[in-house]
Amino acid sequence: MKIETLRWANNHLEMIDQRILPASFEYLAYDSAASVAEGIRSMVVRGAPAIGVAAAYGVALEALRLSGLLPPARGKAGMGVGDTASTPSPALPLQGGGNSAADFNAGMEAGFTVLAQSRPTAVNLFWALKRMRAVWESVKDQGNAAVAQRLLAEAHEVLAEDIRINRAMGKFGAELLPDGARVLTHCNAGALATAGWGTALGVFRSALEAGKKISVIADETRPFLQGARLTAWEMVQENIPVTLITDNMAGFMMSRGEVDAVVVGTDRVAGNGDVANKIGTYMVAVLARRHNLPFYVACPLSTIDMTINSGADIPIEERSVDEVKGFRDYHWAAEGVRIRNPAFDVTPAELVTALITEKGVIREPDRNKLQALF
Amino acid sequence: MKIETLRWANNHLEMIDQRILPASFEYLAYDSAASVAEGIRSMVVRGAPAIGVAAAYGVALEALRLSGLLPPARGKAGMGVGDTASTPSPALPLQGGGNSAADFNAGMEAGFTVLAQSRPTAVNLFWALKRMRAVWESVKDQGNAAVAQRLLAEAHEVLAEDIRINRAMGKFGAELLPDGARVLTHCNAGALATAGWGTALGVFRSALEAGKKISVIADETRPFLQGARLTAWEMVQENIPVTLITDNMAGFMMSRGEVDAVVVGTDRVAGNGDVANKIGTYMVAVLARRHNLPFYVACPLSTIDMTINSGADIPIEERSVDEVKGFRDYHWAAEGVRIRNPAFDVTPAELVTALITEKGVIREPDRNKLQALF
Repeated sequence: MKIETLRWANNHLEMIDQRILPASFEYLAYDSAASVAEGIRSMVVRGAPAIGVAAAYGVALEALRLSGLLPPARGKAGMGVGDTASTPSPALPLQGGGNSAADFNAGMEAGFTVLAQSRPTAVNLFWALKRMRAVWESVKDQGNAAVAQRLLAEAHEVLAEDIRINRAMGKFGAELLPDGARVLTHCNAGALATAGWGTALGVFRSALEAGKKISVIADETRPFLQGARLTAWEMVQENIPVTLITDNMAGFMMSRGEVDAVVVGTDRVAGNGDVANKIGTYMVAVLARRHNLPFYVACPLSTIDMTINSGADIPIEERSVDEVKGFRDYHWAAEGVRIRNPAFDVTPAELVTALITEKGVIREPDRNKLQALF
Repeated sequence: MKIETLRWANNHLEMIDQRILPASFEYLAYDSAASVAEGIRSMVVRGAPAIGVAAAYGVALEALRLSGLLPPARGKAGMGVGDTASTPSPALPLQGGGNSAADFNAGMEAGFTVLAQSRPTAVNLFWALKRMRAVWESVKDQGNAAVAQRLLAEAHEVLAEDIRINRAMGKFGAELLPDGARVLTHCNAGALATAGWGTALGVFRSALEAGKKISVIADETRPFLQGARLTAWEMVQENIPVTLITDNMAGFMMSRGEVDAVVVGTDRVAGNGDVANKIGTYMVAVLARRHNLPFYVACPLSTIDMTINSGADIPIEERSVDEVKGFRDYHWAAEGVRIRNPAFDVTPAELVTALITEKGVIREPDRNKLQALF
């Protein structure tokens, strides 16, 4: 099965509701910047590259909506339930009704703002918004409908490009993994974290495509359980051998010689090569170093933030304590306990064996090597 | 509230059902070696010292049962539900009916066997069985009823001694913690893991008793969630400040300078000082070393197994994969994924700053220092 995390269908953005996977597989439809921002915030969609693609569509949707070009979303406004089979989108009219240029511009600014506030850590979000803003500004004088059509075309291109980039990273990354490698990963940096193929899981897919035997060890990744629910599900869909462990078993597996390498994704790489990724990644990196295992980070260039000097300056989102109390509505923690819930941590560059980018493998990343990529 | 993890009430062993804490607080009653073994296996009772005490009572119960001295347990045979208030035990008769000496001895051997098979990693289980066997053999010729009474007295002594030992360890351990220390712990090495007071949590209690301000950071401890359910509950009961995190946040907390020391319990210490404890302990020890934080292990002498050369020889229990699929009956993992569930890991002695025993603090433990304790 081909996993389409985000898709344009019936002239709306549809996204797999990742909160209910793997028990249920369902698309939700989005028709505005605000609804997409809420989808990002509530983790219907997650994973840095996927968030970037969603944000690009959020901008395009807002432009279409403000131009009066958008049919209403089915079901609850902006949150209708899509079919699991994609619906073709009829051509949009070239002329909409909608707002004056001034109202359109004000509405667009509000849309950019609400999207930028949805999640703080992943830089792809800001990268996508910057890209969409540049396109917007380049065609601002062509009328609302034309602007909206151009932004939609750009969002489609962001999605297609994401898959091409993942494929390119996968090819470079696959060369790093020996045949038969047992590779540990944390969280989900798969098709579900991107527009398709995946970053870390894309490396595994590319290695398998190249004829290598790879088996995956997936940390369950508390509290949101992206490993148990999403990575395990993705791998099982494609018959890729995958073993699930709780996060605290990674050291045991390494100490028993049952891990050959680690590959993870990232939400933001600082200019010096420090890597922000899902909480627990740092722990895996420290254990990998102790066991002399390579620690690879699959990282499209859009995830590298040269404006940030080091990991210490990356904002770390702290999410609702309810996530740690239990899972979904099932709470098991003792009443009255204080709770912390940082969603990300920072792995210093010195623990990173290499970054895998679409331009090649960067060993022992540092500011000079990263600068040279741009 | 005083936590009585195990107690002798109404001439049965009663144990808090730790599987349903903190949502429900309930005692289960036990009237045979087999029922106690099942209580250990199914984790009604857990924690190395508590398992040792339970096993001692299991032997005594079996002797009482085989001597015809035991009233039937209330409710389901051997698994009745006790009141939350303890019921005094009427004096047992001095003469029972029951079995011939040969049948008694065969029954006792079967009881020892079923208890020894209940859980493989914690050595206190075998220590308690050895101690009870020695007592049995010393009074074997005095008749079944007298043997049973003597074994029951010994089980009571094992329980009382466990609390005395915890108090002694607590006092030594408390001296290691500076005033204001923020101490991370993994799993539950508290009153619920012992007959009372606790090993690691006993150190915190003793430090507080000595007037030090201590705050606790509790790893939730997947998959059985002893940290979220038991440690958090124990600390909240006594108004000890406690913050709950998922296991994969320990590195983040250390990297932010929010942890001053680690104190954990142990299920078995090898002759060279290697420490087996709940899965994930090794990870915490590796992280503590990276951050130059002291890593202390609260360890009664009954947990030290000089017959084991190193951690590599400690048997590691692998439990049902259902525990990792989710929690209790709520499963979230993708169908079809392979799962591992080692319940313990081994921390090499070189990562242990000190063992805290009832005879004092053993810094940088090795075979010579451990040998000198006995």
